[in-house]
Amino acid sequence: MTQSYSYERLLAFTTGIFRQIACPDTEAQTAARALLSADLRGVDSHGVARLVGYVRLWEAGRVNSTPKIRIIHETPSTAVVDGDGGLGLVVAPFAMQVAIDKAKNVGTGWVSVQNSNHFGIAGYHAMKAVEQDMIGIAMTNASALVAPTFSVERLLGTNPISVAVPAGEQPPFVADLATTTAANGKLEILQRKKGQAPEGWIQDRHGNSSTDPHELKQGGALLPLGGDREHGSHKGYALGAVVDIFSAVLSGANYGPWVPPFPAYVPMPTGMPGKGIGHFFGAMRVDAFRPASDFKVDMDRWIGRFRAAKTIAGQDRVLIPGDPERESEMLRLKQGIPLLPSVVEDLLSLAKKFKVEL
Amino acid sequence: MTQSYSYERLLAFTTGIFRQIACPDTEAQTAARALLSADLRGVDSHGVARLVGYVRLWEAGRVNSTPKIRIIHETPSTAVVDGDGGLGLVVAPFAMQVAIDKAKNVGTGWVSVQNSNHFGIAGYHAMKAVEQDMIGIAMTNASALVAPTFSVERLLGTNPISVAVPAGEQPPFVADLATTTAANGKLEILQRKKGQAPEGWIQDRHGNSSTDPHELKQGGALLPLGGDREHGSHKGYALGAVVDIFSAVLSGANYGPWVPPFPAYVPMPTGMPGKGIGHFFGAMRVDAFRPASDFKVDMDRWIGRFRAAKTIAGQDRVLIPGDPERESEMLRLKQGIPLLPSVVEDLLSLAKKFKVEL
Repeated sequence: MTQSYSYERLLAFTTGIFRQIACPDTEAQTAARALLSADLRGVDSHGVARLVGYVRLWEAGRVNSTPKIRIIHETPSTAVVDGDGGLGLVVAPFAMQVAIDKAKNVGTGWVSVQNSNHFGIAGYHAMKAVEQDMIGIAMTNASALVAPTFSVERLLGTNPISVAVPAGEQPPFVADLATTTAANGKLEILQRKKGQAPEGWIQDRHGNSSTDPHELKQGGALLPLGGDREHGSHKGYALGAVVDIFSAVLSGANYGPWVPPFPAYVPMPTGMPGKGIGHFFGAMRVDAFRPASDFKVDMDRWIGRFRAAKTIAGQDRVLIPGDPERESEMLRLKQGIPLLPSVVEDLLSLAKKFKVEL
Repeated sequence: MTQSYSYERLLAFTTGIFRQIACPDTEAQTAARALLSADLRGVDSHGVARLVGYVRLWEAGRVNSTPKIRIIHETPSTAVVDGDGGLGLVVAPFAMQVAIDKAKNVGTGWVSVQNSNHFGIAGYHAMKAVEQDMIGIAMTNASALVAPTFSVERLLGTNPISVAVPAGEQPPFVADLATTTAANGKLEILQRKKGQAPEGWIQDRHGNSSTDPHELKQGGALLPLGGDREHGSHKGYALGAVVDIFSAVLSGANYGPWVPPFPAYVPMPTGMPGKGIGHFFGAMRVDAFRPASDFKVDMDRWIGRFRAAKTIAGQDRVLIPGDPERESEMLRLKQGIPLLPSVVEDLLSLAKKFKVEL
């Protein structure tokens, strides 16, 4: 049912489309690489399937394709970056580089970002630090789809957190998680399959547990990691809240129910307190704590011990965070990226409209 | 059934006991305040009920009551602190102060700690930063009670994360959460009540879901936040892993299954790769990002909006992280701290043994 496209082909196409919405050449390439990292890593909901969404944001005047991204406040270990309304796919790499540069100077760097847009997957940005023997951290807020514990109102986004840690012989540890029980992309898959969601993923507009994957269209909400109070949903709520505060209250972006939506047809919230969407990035030089070689010996031992854990009957192995995504990437670089017919259709219509070959 | 003791009375008693296990006067006071903050904040499992446990660690020669706590590596924004085998209740305040001092100089401070012991509740340490208009972060690893997703082996502690954020008119936001579905203290309560645990809290020694709160004594395990794979347990596992890595792999402490146990009768793990237990602390000056007054206006608005959220029928209100603990503290400062008979019995036996008046 799916059709496979090589990474190179999709990269050239996506870069071409970003150029057509007036991104300068370098930034079009930066944005395309960030976007397609989601497809490579198997996070299909956040990759090229969203390209048409980014184009619509530009058409609606909600994205600035020639932003003047700049630091508006800084100390030796911190900065606030103003994304000037640019693509998060371009703003985030800029901000992560600022964090890395500061870590080079004083051991760590921490950058909060205002006035940005959706940045793709958090893990891609966090992993940039790993190349420099640093621990990378990336998070972002997003428009409100999640109800805090006991709330019927949606006040938080799926607000992901990524932490990427270098190792020695072992591949890096890369955690990348929405602070909800299930990511919105998983609901979309169930909607297409006409399936039911498990209990604990969503509530209806009255706050009752629901298994209908269409519930969000009727005022329902995704649930914080934990699902319900008895299973720790107040913890998922607290983590999503921390992401919101670090990304937006620290930077002067919009937070809570005021975060701009990704779909261009959804009206902007009224009474917005800040500018655009917020992100937060961190980089910590490993050798700001211990010699990197010592750290890597222990990190390899950590990974090796967890990977070797005795499994529950019927399970092959205990995974290290980042294992499935890395395996997807290796496979898809070889075999191509499988796209659903609806996604191919969207891309073909973009190809026609902007005269870019797919 | 419980008996109430005033905070002052328990503080004097606890300080006296720490003095009797050879802590210098100032450190005895520091430790007592840190320990009792758990009782004030309603986290009864981590407070004075554990005093006898700390004494037994000292008696077993597993705690050094006169540690030379020192910085063994540092950069302008980072440090590694060697706790010299001291009480975590004393080592943690030292390390948090290092983080705060570094934040004063370069915007943020990040401190990883080796060779420490249990530090009480994470929130107490994180909140130290709030008094200085900083965001505080505290985490610690702990002995392995938690099985990663698909594992029957226990490889992680309940590894809590606390993030404390200052506000203006509003009280601070204080998240403080074990990265498990339920804290071990909740199982202990069910054991005493002869109750059953909800599904999703624990597994038996084969990795099957269980509701028996005694399961851990038979080789079972606590489950990561999320409970099972379908509900995101791999996310709770990843978060607990991040706490372990930041606390111990960055500092050179023990990690994974090698973290020393709190009960003195439990043998030490064999083949320990590091020193003692690990912690991790962070302090970020709010004005390293924005003027503190601007931040506080937005933080107040954030808190106000969430507090005002429409609730699910039957629920009074949407809580802000830290609300229940602060309310407990206000109440218990006035009405005293209620202690179970078994806890009072332990304290009375300590009183007799060490000739300290309760």
